Amino acid sequence: MPVQTPSRVPALRNIATRLRIDSVLSTTEAGSGHPSTCCSAAEIMAALFFSEMRYDPRDPANEDNDRFVLSKGHAAPILYAAWAEAGIIRREDLLTLRRLDSDLEGHPTPRLPWVDVATGSLGQGLCAGVGIALNARRIASEYRTYVLLGDGETAEGSVWEAAHVAAHNKLDSLCAITDVNGLGQSQPSVWDHDMDAYASRWTAFGWHAIVVDGHDLPAVLDGLAEARRTKGRPTMLLASTVKGKGISLIEGKSGWHGKPLKKGEELDKALAELKAQVVPEDEPAPAPEKPVGRKRPAPQPARLDPPSYKLGDSVATREAYGTALARIGAADARIVALDADVKNSTFSDRFEQQHPDRFYQSFIAEQVMVGAAMGLAARGAIPFPSTFAAFLARAYDFIRMAAISNTNIKLAGSHAGVSIGEDGPSQMALEDLAMMRAQPNFTVLYPCDAVSTDRLIERAAYHRGPVYMRTSRPKTAVIYGPEETFEIGGLKVLRQSGADVATVIGAGVTVFEALKAYDQLKTEGISIRVVDLYCLQPIDAAALTACAEATKGRLITVEDHYPGGGIGDAVASAVASRGFTVLRLAVPEIPRSGTPEQLLDHYGISARHIVGAVKKP
Amino acid sequence: MPVQTPSRVPALRNIATRLRIDSVLSTTEAGSGHPSTCCSAAEIMAALFFSEMRYDPRDPANEDNDRFVLSKGHAAPILYAAWAEAGIIRREDLLTLRRLDSDLEGHPTPRLPWVDVATGSLGQGLCAGVGIALNARRIASEYRTYVLLGDGETAEGSVWEAAHVAAHNKLDSLCAITDVNGLGQSQPSVWDHDMDAYASRWTAFGWHAIVVDGHDLPAVLDGLAEARRTKGRPTMLLASTVKGKGISLIEGKSGWHGKPLKKGEELDKALAELKAQVVPEDEPAPAPEKPVGRKRPAPQPARLDPPSYKLGDSVATREAYGTALARIGAADARIVALDADVKNSTFSDRFEQQHPDRFYQSFIAEQVMVGAAMGLAARGAIPFPSTFAAFLARAYDFIRMAAISNTNIKLAGSHAGVSIGEDGPSQMALEDLAMMRAQPNFTVLYPCDAVSTDRLIERAAYHRGPVYMRTSRPKTAVIYGPEETFEIGGLKVLRQSGADVATVIGAGVTVFEALKAYDQLKTEGISIRVVDLYCLQPIDAAALTACAEATKGRLITVEDHYPGGGIGDAVASAVASRGFTVLRLAVPEIPRSGTPEQLLDHYGISARHIVGAVKKP
Repeated sequence: MPVQTPSRVPALRNIATRLRIDSVLSTTEAGSGHPSTCCSAAEIMAALFFSEMRYDPRDPANEDNDRFVLSKGHAAPILYAAWAEAGIIRREDLLTLRRLDSDLEGHPTPRLPWVDVATGSLGQGLCAGVGIALNARRIASEYRTYVLLGDGETAEGSVWEAAHVAAHNKLDSLCAITDVNGLGQSQPSVWDHDMDAYASRWTAFGWHAIVVDGHDLPAVLDGLAEARRTKGRPTMLLASTVKGKGISLIEGKSGWHGKPLKKGEELDKALAELKAQVVPEDEPAPAPEKPVGRKRPAPQPARLDPPSYKLGDSVATREAYGTALARIGAADARIVALDADVKNSTFSDRFEQQHPDRFYQSFIAEQVMVGAAMGLAARGAIPFPSTFAAFLARAYDFIRMAAISNTNIKLAGSHAGVSIGEDGPSQMALEDLAMMRAQPNFTVLYPCDAVSTDRLIERAAYHRGPVYMRTSRPKTAVIYGPEETFEIGGLKVLRQSGADVATVIGAGVTVFEALKAYDQLKTEGISIRVVDLYCLQPIDAAALTACAEATKGRLITVEDHYPGGGIGDAVASAVASRGFTVLRLAVPEIPRSGTPEQLLDHYGISARHIVGAVKKP
Repeated sequence: MPVQTPSRVPALRNIATRLRIDSVLSTTEAGSGHPSTCCSAAEIMAALFFSEMRYDPRDPANEDNDRFVLSKGHAAPILYAAWAEAGIIRREDLLTLRRLDSDLEGHPTPRLPWVDVATGSLGQGLCAGVGIALNARRIASEYRTYVLLGDGETAEGSVWEAAHVAAHNKLDSLCAITDVNGLGQSQPSVWDHDMDAYASRWTAFGWHAIVVDGHDLPAVLDGLAEARRTKGRPTMLLASTVKGKGISLIEGKSGWHGKPLKKGEELDKALAELKAQVVPEDEPAPAPEKPVGRKRPAPQPARLDPPSYKLGDSVATREAYGTALARIGAADARIVALDADVKNSTFSDRFEQQHPDRFYQSFIAEQVMVGAAMGLAARGAIPFPSTFAAFLARAYDFIRMAAISNTNIKLAGSHAGVSIGEDGPSQMALEDLAMMRAQPNFTVLYPCDAVSTDRLIERAAYHRGPVYMRTSRPKTAVIYGPEETFEIGGLKVLRQSGADVATVIGAGVTVFEALKAYDQLKTEGISIRVVDLYCLQPIDAAALTACAEATKGRLITVEDHYPGGGIGDAVASAVASRGFTVLRLAVPEIPRSGTPEQLLDHYGISARHIVGAVKKP
C-alpha cells in the first residue's frame, strides 16, 4: 500500500544518485570527510526530503515545517547535498565544504538555518528529536520530527534514554531511522546486519520497529508511510544498508570510514559508476510538499512583579528557584521545565504543579533531559532543565554541544558544594562552575539569596544563549530588597569603606561566610570589602579591578567548589593583567560526609578561614 | 531445585530483619538517609551476603572474593549493616553513619576496603561491574560479580551501555539484581512493577532475565542459583519489592524517599514491628563460604627501554601514545586498554594488535568504557581507556566519581583543540583540561612530542591515582632525546637567556608555536623564555615563579583550549600570590571548520599572536 505513486520512484532514485555524486565531489574537494557514510543513506535522504517531509524550502523559520536531525553528523555532506537538490543552497557552494569561509562545516551546526542542533557527537540527535517532538505538542503543530541515526551510535546510552522518554510520552510524531550499514569507524559494528537484534531492542523499549532494505526506495517510502500511520508510539525504521553503496571501490568495505576519494582515477571511476546508475524518469522529481501551517500570536510575556521576600527571610536558593520558575512560567507560555526525578529537591515541582502540560519528566536520565531541552529551545521554547548540579556532569557532552549550538537552554543545578552536608561527595557538585565556565558562551550565575535568584531567573530566561544557574541546599537569609536589580555580568559590593585591607569575593553560601568574617574583623578594627559575585561569566572585570585597587591589590576568593576552574580562577583571569594577588579559599580535596557547618570549616571556606586569610601578611 | 536447604531460610529471614533494624537505627541516629530504600532490599542482601556470595570477611584483599557493587548507593546503611552482620565492622559503629569522623559515609566510597568504586551517582554500578567481571577473566579467577541496582536508575543510558558490553563479552560471572520497588525519589518510577517491561528489555539486550518476588527468600536464592548456572550471558534478577517493606508507616508509600524515622513514637513503633517479624530458626545463620583462591605471582613489570625516536622525527603524540601503550603492555601484564570505536584514530589499536586479550572494545559508549575501567582498576589492573578527548565529556560524571574513588585509571584523550582542523567543533576538545583539572586528585599531562608522550605514559602507569593525558592529532617534531626524563609535576624550560623579556608557556601543539615565536623574536633581538608545561596538575609552581621573576614578572600562556580552566588558569593559580601578570592566549569562542594552521591563527594562538603578545607593552 505505498502512498507514493510508483512512477515517482525513478526520479527519487536519480536524486539519491545525485546526492551520492555531490557527497563524493564535496569531500574530495575538501580533502577530508565521510563519503562512505553518506552513500549508505542516499535513498533514505531522497525519500525523506523529496517525498515524505513537508516543508517550505524557502522558509526555514516556518514553525510547521517537518524537522530533520542528522544524528550521524559526519554524513553532513549528504545533508548539504539534499539542500542543494531542494534549492535551499547553491549546488556550487557544496564545494566550499569544511572551509573556514564556509558555513558548510565538517559536521552540521545551527549557523545553518535548517539545523536545530549541532551534531557530530554521536548519540545526541534522538534526544534533541524528543524535544523537537514535544515542542510540536506544545505549539499544537502537525509537524513531524525525523532523526537519522547511524547503527554504531545506538551503543550510546543516551539513545536509550531518548527511546524510553519518547515511548513514555507516546511521541508518534517522532520517526527515527537507523542507517544500519554494519561498519563502525574502526571495525564492524557490534550487531552487524542482525536486524532482529535491533528490532527487538526498540520493540522492548516501546517503539514500533520496521525493518526495511534501506536501498529499496519503495520499501523505504512504505516504511515512512507506516510510521506516519502509527499512533501512540514513536517509530524506528531500521534500514539495512551498505556503507559506500554505489561505488564498488568502497562498497561494504572496512577501512573507508572518513576517507574521501582521491582526485584522479579514484574519483573519476566512482563518478562514472554513479552516473551509470541514472535511470529514465517517468515523472519529474516531486517538489517537497509545503506544511499546513497556522498563524500563531507572537509571544507576549507579562512583566514579572518583584518577589515578595522580606529582608531576613530564610529561604534556600533552590527553593527560590522553583518559586521563580513557577512565577515566570505563568508570565510566559514559552517557559518549560524538565526534571530527572529530583523535582522535590530542586523545587521544580512548583512549576509542575502550576504548569503540568509544560513540565517534562525524564526520570533518572540527565542526557535526554538536556538533549530534549536543546530540541525544545531550537523550536522556540525557553527550557529550564534542572537536577542536582553534580548530575549535570552526566550530561556534559550535551552541554558542550549546547555551547556549540549556542542553544537557548537555562540549566539549573542544585545541591552545590560541601554545604549539602551528610549525603557525601557523590551528591556534591564541586566542579560544575569549572564545567560551565569552560564553555565560552555560557552565562554562569550563582545567586546567594532568594531575591537575587528570583530576579536572575528572569534575566536568564530573556538572555539569548545558554545559561547555567547554581543553587544551594541550605536556607540562607534574604539580603536584598525586592526592588534590587541584577544584571548578567554584574556583581554587588556588599560592604566597603575607605580603609578596606582586602576584597573578599564570595558567591552563594560563601557570601554569608564573608559577611560573618566582616563582622568578626570589624570588632578587631579591620575593614574588608565584601563582594557577592553572583555572575561568574561574563565577569565584571572593571568592578573587580576597582575593588582590588581600593584594597591594596589584595583579592581573596572563597568558594564552595574545587580550586580548579571556579571563582578563584575566574577572578584571577579577570584581573590577570594587573598584577594583583589572588588568594583562593576553595575545597582542596575530595570531601566526605558531615554536617554543612563542619564541612565548610573542615575544608577551609568558613568565616574563620576568611579571617585568617585577611590577617595573613 | 533450591541449592539452599530450606532449614536455613528462617535464619536468613532473621538476618533480613536485623538488616532492616540496623538501617532504621543508623539513619535515625544520623538524622538523614534512606531507610525505605534499604528495606526493599533486605532479603536480597541477606541472600547475597549470607548464602550466595563466597568471600572471606577477614580478608578484603583476597583477589578471589566474590564482589558486590551497590549501584543504588543511597542504600548504603544496609550494606554497612550486612558488614556488621558478617563481622566485618562492629555493630555499634553503624551509629556513626554520615559523621565527619566516620568512614561510613552517606554513600559508599573506597575509603572502605570492601568498596571497589564510589556509588551514589545512579547508573554507574553496572558499568563498574562489567570491568570487575572482565578482571576475573584477566586474572583467571572464579570470583563472581554482583551488582544491586534500583529500578529508577535503569532509566540511565549508562546502564544500557553496560548491558550491551556485558552481553557482547558473554560475562556469565556477572549477576545484576534490580530492586524493583516501584518508587523513585519524586514519584512512582516509570514502569512501576511492570516486571515484563523490565524483563523484555534485558532479554532484548542479550541477558538472561529472571523475575522473582524480592521478599520471598527461597525465590531469591533460587534465582541466584539459576544465575550461577547460566552460561554464556550475564543474568539480571528482577526482584519485585516494596519500598519500606516491613514498616507499615512507610511501606509502599510515596513521600518517604530519603527520610529517616523520627526518634520517639515513629522509631519505636517501627522497631517493635520489625522485632515481631523475627521467626524461630531451624539452623543457625550460615557463615559466608570462603572463596577457592589460588596463589598468583606478584606482578613484575619489566623496565621500559627508552623509545627509539630521533630528534626531528615527525610523530603525532596520539600515535606515540599508541606505540607507548603497546610497549608498556608488553612489559606489564596489568596494563589493559579500552576503546570506544576510535582505536585507529587514537592508535590504541597498536595495543590491541599485541595484546588482544587485554583490549576491551566498548563500541561507541564512553560511559561504560570509563566505568569498566574503574572496575578493572579496583581489582588490580592498570587500565588506559582512550577516545577523542571531546568525547570524554560524555563520561564526565564517571570521571567525577573516579576522582571520588581515587581510582587508578589512566584516561587518554586525542584530537584535542582546533588543531584537528576540518572536522569542526564537535570533534575538538576545548574544555577537557578544565574538566580534568577541576578534579583535585587528577594528574593532568599534555606532552608535545613523541618522547615525552612515551616517557609520561610510563609515569602515568605507575603513578597511583587517576591520570589524564591529552594528545594531539597533527604530527609534531620530536624535540627531546630518548634519554630525557619527565616527572609528574614537572615542566621543561626549552629556551632561556639572561635577557628574556617574558616567559611563554605552551603545551602540546602550542609549544611549537612558542618556539616559532622565539625564532622570530630572536631575529628582532628580543629574547623570550619558552616553557613546555607538559604537566598541568600538579604544577611546578616554583619553576614558574622562578621563570616569572627572571622575565620581568611577565607570563604569557598559549593553549589550544578555551580560556576557562585551562593552562592560563593553572599558571595564574600557581603564581597567584606573587602579583605577576598572566596574559592568556586561548581559543576565545566556539570555533569552526578550517585547516589546522588557519584555525590556530584565526583563534589567536599561533606564533604571530605570541610575538604580538610579547611585544605588547
